[in-house]
Amino acid sequence: MIFEVLTKDPKTRARRGRLQTAHGFVETPVFMPVGTQATVKSMTGDQLQALNVEILLCNAYHLLLRPGHETIQQLGGLHRFMAWDRPILTDSGGYQVFSLSTLRDLDEDGVRFQSHLDGSTHFLSPEKAIDVQAALGSDIMMILDDCLAYPASRFETEKSMHRSLIWADRCKKHWEIRGRTPNSPWNSGCVPESPALFGIVQGGIYHDLRRESAVRLAAMDFPGYAIGGLAVGEPKPLMYEIIDEVGPHLPAAKPRYLMGVGTPADLAEAIALGVDMFDCVMPTRHARNGWLFTKHGHIVIKHAKYKDDPDPVDSTCSCMVCRRYSRAYLRHLFIANEILSSVLNTIHNLHFYLDTISRIRQFIELHHFDEFLAEVRKAGFTPS
Amino acid sequence: MIFEVLTKDPKTRARRGRLQTAHGFVETPVFMPVGTQATVKSMTGDQLQALNVEILLCNAYHLLLRPGHETIQQLGGLHRFMAWDRPILTDSGGYQVFSLSTLRDLDEDGVRFQSHLDGSTHFLSPEKAIDVQAALGSDIMMILDDCLAYPASRFETEKSMHRSLIWADRCKKHWEIRGRTPNSPWNSGCVPESPALFGIVQGGIYHDLRRESAVRLAAMDFPGYAIGGLAVGEPKPLMYEIIDEVGPHLPAAKPRYLMGVGTPADLAEAIALGVDMFDCVMPTRHARNGWLFTKHGHIVIKHAKYKDDPDPVDSTCSCMVCRRYSRAYLRHLFIANEILSSVLNTIHNLHFYLDTISRIRQFIELHHFDEFLAEVRKAGFTPS
Repeated sequence: MIFEVLTKDPKTRARRGRLQTAHGFVETPVFMPVGTQATVKSMTGDQLQALNVEILLCNAYHLLLRPGHETIQQLGGLHRFMAWDRPILTDSGGYQVFSLSTLRDLDEDGVRFQSHLDGSTHFLSPEKAIDVQAALGSDIMMILDDCLAYPASRFETEKSMHRSLIWADRCKKHWEIRGRTPNSPWNSGCVPESPALFGIVQGGIYHDLRRESAVRLAAMDFPGYAIGGLAVGEPKPLMYEIIDEVGPHLPAAKPRYLMGVGTPADLAEAIALGVDMFDCVMPTRHARNGWLFTKHGHIVIKHAKYKDDPDPVDSTCSCMVCRRYSRAYLRHLFIANEILSSVLNTIHNLHFYLDTISRIRQFIELHHFDEFLAEVRKAGFTPS
Repeated sequence: MIFEVLTKDPKTRARRGRLQTAHGFVETPVFMPVGTQATVKSMTGDQLQALNVEILLCNAYHLLLRPGHETIQQLGGLHRFMAWDRPILTDSGGYQVFSLSTLRDLDEDGVRFQSHLDGSTHFLSPEKAIDVQAALGSDIMMILDDCLAYPASRFETEKSMHRSLIWADRCKKHWEIRGRTPNSPWNSGCVPESPALFGIVQGGIYHDLRRESAVRLAAMDFPGYAIGGLAVGEPKPLMYEIIDEVGPHLPAAKPRYLMGVGTPADLAEAIALGVDMFDCVMPTRHARNGWLFTKHGHIVIKHAKYKDDPDPVDSTCSCMVCRRYSRAYLRHLFIANEILSSVLNTIHNLHFYLDTISRIRQFIELHHFDEFLAEVRKAGFTPS
């Protein structure tokens, strides 16, 4: 994977870049819709392409449980399985093991856990996490990390962060060995070149632990770096502080990915702090719950006031939904519990996120990202 | 509305025709997907157009309850509401009043019923049924009929059939009065010309009652005729007998619509008996339940045997789903309860129905429909 910083905003740390992966280019900053179970909920591949989605995130945890990473590998890899020929980033499963599964048995070697689906027992080690993601045919893999719930004590956080560093090192070594092994392609030929591997900075809300994690990961020389363990319940200003703290300790020439964040305003703030990549279920999950993003604030589409409303969700929005359908129709679909409600709301919300990112890229290219940021802060638009 | 019979099959009563409506042409025989609540479940308008859906059926009963026909009228009519610019046929609501609602109070004037949604009380008369469909801006309306459950005694059936005839006459008169009233357009200008009105033949499984209903409706001179009250539980051979009985008593120059039928084999049999139009929830409902139609029989996609199956649902199918996705992926989506399962299965099943109809049209044009029918009977394909 090649990462190039094309230009930098002079007044913030925002950067405009480009990732080159085995499945094509990704312009950054980028927002990655979440396709947990090998599908961005309710979206066809055509619809995602029409929205100009450049890269998806899929969850190794969910896919190893169902249908199984070996099954997907036999079927030609995740890209073939879900008929998506653009890049895919997979997370390692760490976060889900610690948040979804039960009866975890954690030691230095890895974590034994029970499936949230059927209670079956599984084991994930740093090496296994790499193998699972390789079987899926991921373009960008994540290391296995130890994820704590918020709040966590300094003692717990330090212990967990150090375990994550050890696991990061083991992931990196296993990834390098696999990459060097002749006639042992990453994914049975599904991926034309080696996938990238990102380290993940942990350390909770403790600045010095975050710094230590970033510095030591940077020394391991990963192709990219993620900031994990944020947006888990801590106050927003604290989240921004941590991002601000971590950023300067990561190599400037490598992409930076803030995991699981966030609102459109969060994206703008984090981009100002030098973040390049994001994923979040917010646009898609909120869509299914009838929460629609607009430049003028959000709309809860089930409200009775939209019953007769002939206007689109956002008259300044150019998405397919706003060009064709009234709030009254979208409300009707939601109230009637129609599947099309999820489909149309998801198209609108993803368009909003991708359009916001697209505008941000333009502002950075014009070296006026500070103006966009000021606008966002003034409007207070789409707070969490 | 103009109906033209373009050609007839020489060995059966199958005909190839064309309907001209306010919203464009419809080639017949035609299958109308069901868009009960102003949406064909899980489908966007783009997807329906890509499938070459020519006409939809919507349910006046559901729409008068939610969001309300006046609401839809204020919003510019049903076409505008659901952003569908091709023809729409609406049923009058009779069938749903008698099958879905509770506490019905039926007399000669009409039927008072309670909504299956919230228990609110509503009244539907022949005149009101026309007004509701006019408010929706339907291209083809149906008369209000009295629909019996199967089985029903001869006495009950006769009484009900006679009531339906009286209601048919009242519907027709009200439709004519509305059509003649100057400055009283059908639908506030939403529809460029008057909608058509179809009579509905009733009479249960009693040949003489069916004949009487057909003859008396034909005398009323409707723009088209439907056969109602079939596919409600009676044996298949009996259904075909009734269609065979009714057909010759309906005007040959008018379209014939078999309501709520049926399997692809049913369509072929009914077309051989001179039927031009069909609607059925089968392709869409079965899709959501994971039942997929193929030329070689049906597939129940949840079966374990498809877990690793890399083949498409039907290797001879040209639909978007069969060109891209494996049975293994479709099974995964179904098992994981993903919305995309309904979307993709619906696209496949609708394609199957529309492709079957398209092949039937070609066989009729070539005057070899008997060959298609023989093939269907031999294969026994997609039985109910």
